[in-house]
Amino acid sequence: MDCIFCKIIKGEISSYKVYEDDATVAFLDISPVNPGHVLVMPKKHCANLEETTEDVLMATMKTVKKIGQSLKDNLGVAGYNISENNDAVAGQIIPHLHFHVIPRQTGDNLALWPQGKYEVGQAEAISNKIKIN
Amino acid sequence: MDCIFCKIIKGEISSYKVYEDDATVAFLDISPVNPGHVLVMPKKHCANLEETTEDVLMATMKTVKKIGQSLKDNLGVAGYNISENNDAVAGQIIPHLHFHVIPRQTGDNLALWPQGKYEVGQAEAISNKIKIN
Repeated sequence: MDCIFCKIIKGEISSYKVYEDDATVAFLDISPVNPGHVLVMPKKHCANLEETTEDVLMATMKTVKKIGQSLKDNLGVAGYNISENNDAVAGQIIPHLHFHVIPRQTGDNLALWPQGKYEVGQAEAISNKIKIN
Repeated sequence: MDCIFCKIIKGEISSYKVYEDDATVAFLDISPVNPGHVLVMPKKHCANLEETTEDVLMATMKTVKKIGQSLKDNLGVAGYNISENNDAVAGQIIPHLHFHVIPRQTGDNLALWPQGKYEVGQAEAISNKIKIN
């Protein structure tokens, strides 16, 4: 498996690691959106959310929560964004499940994506398709 | 508690609900980034990631995983973004923890935030601050 994140996890490629436990690891994104931008991921390779198990996902989210707390406690940030880009069309470059934890600062000029509106009847039609019974 | 999401959860405000279990609910974001944009949240009110318990977070992520699968299975999307805006500075408008699940389409012109670079020594200094032992 020629996965760059697996190589970082094995220590074959260096990283600025900030947390590690049996199931997960967290290290700096070397091209940060803001300083202190951390990537959190399971050690066990899986491409995305659908490929992972609930246990692995749970372990990963516990680490995400710890990192968020550390950013507030130790970098003094007022908030952060959690994001997971699931598949290439969503901007996922490395197909090894990972969550971005991005510290935010007032006036950093980062904007959420613009939101639109549904046509009459469209929301109901789409919700009926997505609905899980 | 004058929380609009708590009112939706109680049924006092209508929504296009797509999933519900004992601990969580998922419904359409009425101002979607892309059609089929879903919000997933715990029923129990908590402002953000730090305020929630691990059990509630785990239940919420299981629902996020189900919604992602449904978007692929039932809307035929090739991928999606998961995001949680944690606190006002991060764009969180309603202080009731919620995860966005945003379907993505090729050519939808949504771009991830620009990434920067660390100065020499900066990544090491910041990782040492964030580090959890």
